[in-house]
Amino acid sequence: MSDSSSSTPHVLSPLRWDGRSLQLLDQRRLPGSESWLELDSADAVADAIRGMAVRGAPAIGIAAAWGLVLAARAAGRQGVMDALPILAAARPTAVNLRWSLERMEALLEEAPDADLATALEAEARSIQEEDLEQNRVMSIHGAARLPENARVLTHCNTGALATGGIGTALGVIRQAYAEERLAAVYATETRPWMQGARLTIWELSREGIPATLITEGAAAQLMAGDGIDWLIVGADRIAANGDTANKIGTYALAVLARAHGARVMVVAPSSTIDMRLGSGARIPIESRPGEEILQAAGLAAAPPGISVSNPAFDVTPANLIDLIVTEKGVVEAPDIDRMRQQFS
Amino acid sequence: MSDSSSSTPHVLSPLRWDGRSLQLLDQRRLPGSESWLELDSADAVADAIRGMAVRGAPAIGIAAAWGLVLAARAAGRQGVMDALPILAAARPTAVNLRWSLERMEALLEEAPDADLATALEAEARSIQEEDLEQNRVMSIHGAARLPENARVLTHCNTGALATGGIGTALGVIRQAYAEERLAAVYATETRPWMQGARLTIWELSREGIPATLITEGAAAQLMAGDGIDWLIVGADRIAANGDTANKIGTYALAVLARAHGARVMVVAPSSTIDMRLGSGARIPIESRPGEEILQAAGLAAAPPGISVSNPAFDVTPANLIDLIVTEKGVVEAPDIDRMRQQFS
Repeated sequence: MSDSSSSTPHVLSPLRWDGRSLQLLDQRRLPGSESWLELDSADAVADAIRGMAVRGAPAIGIAAAWGLVLAARAAGRQGVMDALPILAAARPTAVNLRWSLERMEALLEEAPDADLATALEAEARSIQEEDLEQNRVMSIHGAARLPENARVLTHCNTGALATGGIGTALGVIRQAYAEERLAAVYATETRPWMQGARLTIWELSREGIPATLITEGAAAQLMAGDGIDWLIVGADRIAANGDTANKIGTYALAVLARAHGARVMVVAPSSTIDMRLGSGARIPIESRPGEEILQAAGLAAAPPGISVSNPAFDVTPANLIDLIVTEKGVVEAPDIDRMRQQFS
Repeated sequence: MSDSSSSTPHVLSPLRWDGRSLQLLDQRRLPGSESWLELDSADAVADAIRGMAVRGAPAIGIAAAWGLVLAARAAGRQGVMDALPILAAARPTAVNLRWSLERMEALLEEAPDADLATALEAEARSIQEEDLEQNRVMSIHGAARLPENARVLTHCNTGALATGGIGTALGVIRQAYAEERLAAVYATETRPWMQGARLTIWELSREGIPATLITEGAAAQLMAGDGIDWLIVGADRIAANGDTANKIGTYALAVLARAHGARVMVVAPSSTIDMRLGSGARIPIESRPGEEILQAAGLAAAPPGISVSNPAFDVTPANLIDLIVTEKGVVEAPDIDRMRQQFS
């Protein structure tokens, strides 16, 4: 893994396959530094996922696919078999990771040894390119549901940095901006990783989309005061009944949205939907190190007697969600029947 | 204003009058460094309030009182007259500041010139000592309302660092801990100043009270999961109908508490109550620099096209508050009639 600085790419993509290694924009260092990691093994990809150099459910899925290509090139079929569980375990909540690995794994049965690396490379490229196209379709679907002069709030980063394209929730905001439907865009800073402040604001600024950064604590007052029409978020896993795991804080914002008459839109590719899970109660929630919270307060460690709880995700029940937007279509007021109708 | 480090005081108090200057624990540098500012003028006190070296509504009121003592010693009656508007303007939301200054100002009419500084000094000392006693009384009132094995959540810092005594909301938690009524204490980190992570956790750790630090975004999931019995917060200004201005994020937590069946307790000395304001809509909300939000994300400034909204307080409507606890008594389900009955 090497580390080099680069100028701003013309089309923003955090993942580039150069024919022999995966170039990854290190999102931990944004926006201060645009540095690229050069990953040449599946282990390096797993480390990058675990360490959040790449984050965002679709981007994690794409990165993992390229990780298997690296494994095949280094050690053939056995390399892929060895890499599969390591990559799958890198982060537990986002199901796109598992979906992507299963799609790649299916090739193991079909492709002859000699063609395996080439077949996997083509599949990884397809996963990435399909995500780009799905982003485009979802963005159009989602933007069409917004009123004129919409006031929208988003959480975390769900843009180009989180996907293979223009983003999920942020793709909707990009599209709506292009259609001149937006009166105001608000982004939460998103503790503890500050994806909103560091990544979403950076993406929006690069495209000249005006936005206002707020703390999560200020969202309720914003809803009660100037008002928000739609909360627009991504997803890491959507259960069969529409319950949605997403970045910690999403559930709070959804409860607040409901209390203030704002609507809630979840935007995610259909690969985020896990029809094998009946409800969000069964989605594994990743707990991350407390240091991620302590650092912003200038604390190296928790003082004696103090613990830190740092769940990375929460689950928003389907009854708080007005719309789930995927590339396969839109589900209004999601429940298990409407979800099955669309996705089974 | 000089700046010197000091060992931990045995009884924690962020404000000490040494007979000629005000020693102030610089809360911006906690918990990394326990440094004391030596303030020798009213202007220096106003700067310390504005810059948040001292914060917490009761502590601000006490500091301002000592600021007038310094003004009187330096320039007599005229000095006090000059200092009054400067101190009053230092922060707009907390009414304890104005209350304290008005109490001091009343002496201008009574005390002869020769005795003015002495009279003001006695009054400032009374304000500080009364706050200590009021904290004690409120803590007992509040703790008595908690169930056995209570699970409580607090926001911002309302402890010894925010008051002249053991604290308001944190005083209740201290008392309840001493009475062995607590099963769990949670503290939000409290963006953007991190008073929860830096100050509340520090205070609790010093006294061996076990607590868990969470981000504000994690509070809703905590309420929905393991559960919270009471949200216990302080106040910067309480209107005649019970609407309560407090640290930004309080309103969000109160809405979430109501949605999850948790109760909401506001703990504040009666000097926080402003019976001249009919409702919270008329409480001035201080807007602070966006840099306070950007810094934790490692951003020196907002990128082009991006703005930052940084309100320091929000208003929780009385209908979300179950209990207002003051040293003069407790108001259940506050409204304008019950508030008048208690405080007019």
